[in-house]
Amino acid sequence: MCEENCDKGKGFIAVHVGAGYHSEEKKSNYKEACKEALLHGMKALQEGKSAIDSVTATIVALEDNIWTNAGRGSNLTIQGTVECDAGLMDGRSLGFGAVGAVPDIQNPVLVARKLLSQQLEGNLSLGRIAPCLMVGAGARDWGMDRGIHKSTPDELITEQSRATYKRYMERLEASQAKRARMTMSGNKDSIGASCEEKSLDTVGAICLDSHGNVAAAASSGGISLKQIGRVGQAALYGCGCWAQNADDGLPGVGVATTGCGEQLVKTLFARELATAVISKETISDATSHAFQNNFLGSPFLKDVQEKQGGALILKYCLSGGSVEDVECIWAYTTDSMCVGYMSSRDSKPKTHLSRLPEHLQCGKSVVIEGAKVNL
Amino acid sequence: MCEENCDKGKGFIAVHVGAGYHSEEKKSNYKEACKEALLHGMKALQEGKSAIDSVTATIVALEDNIWTNAGRGSNLTIQGTVECDAGLMDGRSLGFGAVGAVPDIQNPVLVARKLLSQQLEGNLSLGRIAPCLMVGAGARDWGMDRGIHKSTPDELITEQSRATYKRYMERLEASQAKRARMTMSGNKDSIGASCEEKSLDTVGAICLDSHGNVAAAASSGGISLKQIGRVGQAALYGCGCWAQNADDGLPGVGVATTGCGEQLVKTLFARELATAVISKETISDATSHAFQNNFLGSPFLKDVQEKQGGALILKYCLSGGSVEDVECIWAYTTDSMCVGYMSSRDSKPKTHLSRLPEHLQCGKSVVIEGAKVNL
Repeated sequence: MCEENCDKGKGFIAVHVGAGYHSEEKKSNYKEACKEALLHGMKALQEGKSAIDSVTATIVALEDNIWTNAGRGSNLTIQGTVECDAGLMDGRSLGFGAVGAVPDIQNPVLVARKLLSQQLEGNLSLGRIAPCLMVGAGARDWGMDRGIHKSTPDELITEQSRATYKRYMERLEASQAKRARMTMSGNKDSIGASCEEKSLDTVGAICLDSHGNVAAAASSGGISLKQIGRVGQAALYGCGCWAQNADDGLPGVGVATTGCGEQLVKTLFARELATAVISKETISDATSHAFQNNFLGSPFLKDVQEKQGGALILKYCLSGGSVEDVECIWAYTTDSMCVGYMSSRDSKPKTHLSRLPEHLQCGKSVVIEGAKVNL
Repeated sequence: MCEENCDKGKGFIAVHVGAGYHSEEKKSNYKEACKEALLHGMKALQEGKSAIDSVTATIVALEDNIWTNAGRGSNLTIQGTVECDAGLMDGRSLGFGAVGAVPDIQNPVLVARKLLSQQLEGNLSLGRIAPCLMVGAGARDWGMDRGIHKSTPDELITEQSRATYKRYMERLEASQAKRARMTMSGNKDSIGASCEEKSLDTVGAICLDSHGNVAAAASSGGISLKQIGRVGQAALYGCGCWAQNADDGLPGVGVATTGCGEQLVKTLFARELATAVISKETISDATSHAFQNNFLGSPFLKDVQEKQGGALILKYCLSGGSVEDVECIWAYTTDSMCVGYMSSRDSKPKTHLSRLPEHLQCGKSVVIEGAKVNL
């Protein structure tokens, strides 16, 4: 086999299980989730699958894992149900597929993948354009018609997610009672939640294959107690993920964002990060610039006290058809971020739970870290 | 009254009822729809309402009109129902609210407006962030809980939209039969629809008030025979509308886009137009640049044969607290675009149905026109 193409199966995958708050107690669960997903994705890559299919396999493993806020084990909505967002972008075709607020589906990324496939096949009959984004029950039914498994509440809701829901609902009731008392007494409501109280957000992955194709994806159960029908950044173009192959002397880039969905939407943060990576000299300069100017200092978040975002970012160059200078960075403004990565040369995945140093303030500063990558 | 504030009620509103194909036969209906909406919006403005509330009133009138593809009279989905997208952006706060694929609601822009209000009130209890985008039945129920009228199919579906649906369904069946025959005989499917066969898309409006606040909004019934749950650009941040007040010496800008939803999403076209207007010397240079580089020549549409987009664009400057140099432009790559505009100095609205000159090719060239504005 290798005589035909020695590069077959070469590649790199990076994942994260959210920027937010990761308890020390569950640290090994989060790292294990990253490891499993990387091994799944790497298996796909080494079987010769493309970047987009390998990134999909990686996200499926994260959605299946009960410790992530995606697919099975997602945060519950205010009505105690699961509704997921997922999106993926293919750096080769620049195609994008996504689903938002989709119920009853454990692997929303598979529906997004099918939307992308339909898009790449060209227009539908009568010249109708294939959709980029489908939502709600319509997205579920469309996926089911194409073989995606409909999950029961028992498959989607875990013992842990039900317990968290119960705890949050009790706090919500207490907070609403307090809010009512304060309103009556004329006090201004100051009930909020600190970084530590907030649970994890989106998971994401980026994959680079031996042909220099990059793909990125994001999947999320959304915030705890969200309204039915709320859609976050994982489903939205330019917000949850970005992938653009190296082309015409310009570097290739993959991005997966995580954090407060509405903040990542209003800053179109995945797209802004990608633009910075393509236009700036180094990936760390680009990341620092984008976090400072397009997130922490963004005019679109001028009224936001605590800016909560994180991103996984990949950059590479293509020279004479060969992938070169692969760099991977993660950055976050939250309490912590858990990431993992694996190159086809590695015998096993690496994982890292990074925490904001004590002297930095959550929501106001950015931590930037990275890994050397050898393909 | 005028002794207090002579500028009260001064302002400008522009509307469009889509870039697409407008038959000569219905020309007066389209122009009348623009006129009515402008008069509604201007009434709000002259009652002292803000730009965001006046733009909402303008869109409500367009949604209520049976000749536009928004609210009542919208294109029907493949299942013969109405599902609407709408979004609006407030240039002062930079807030954005939107709903996607929402059933049973004649005025989706009113739900989007309520989402924006909630956002401007700050976080929900327990520090939960107010959503930017809600979709499907969840968005409908959320709106109904806040007093938005639930419409019956009889209110939403008109005689005309039912007839169009029937005609399209017959053509769809014929086209699917032809596709099946061609697939059997090994021929490549070339069934498409020319510009002329395609119906209108999104409506939009931009409003500038006497304080220099700008707001923009978009509303759409989506494409004919769309899948249940499909969301187009009118609901998506950076895609359907954009508004940014003049600030710090930079001009203010309002944008409302129309055309093929997926193409406007993949190019984040409202945002790109706004960026161009803020950074380029003149509004016509900015429009021409953005249409050529970020739409017709966009790498994100490299595989698209016919690029169908249109936009209404407003630019203004603020000098010593006074609004100056208001300019309004419309541009499109489709067969036609119908627009209207009115300043508070005008005794009646102006409307214009612009058609692509015969020597230009639909989907490959751009027409740019504009109007002088006196406040």
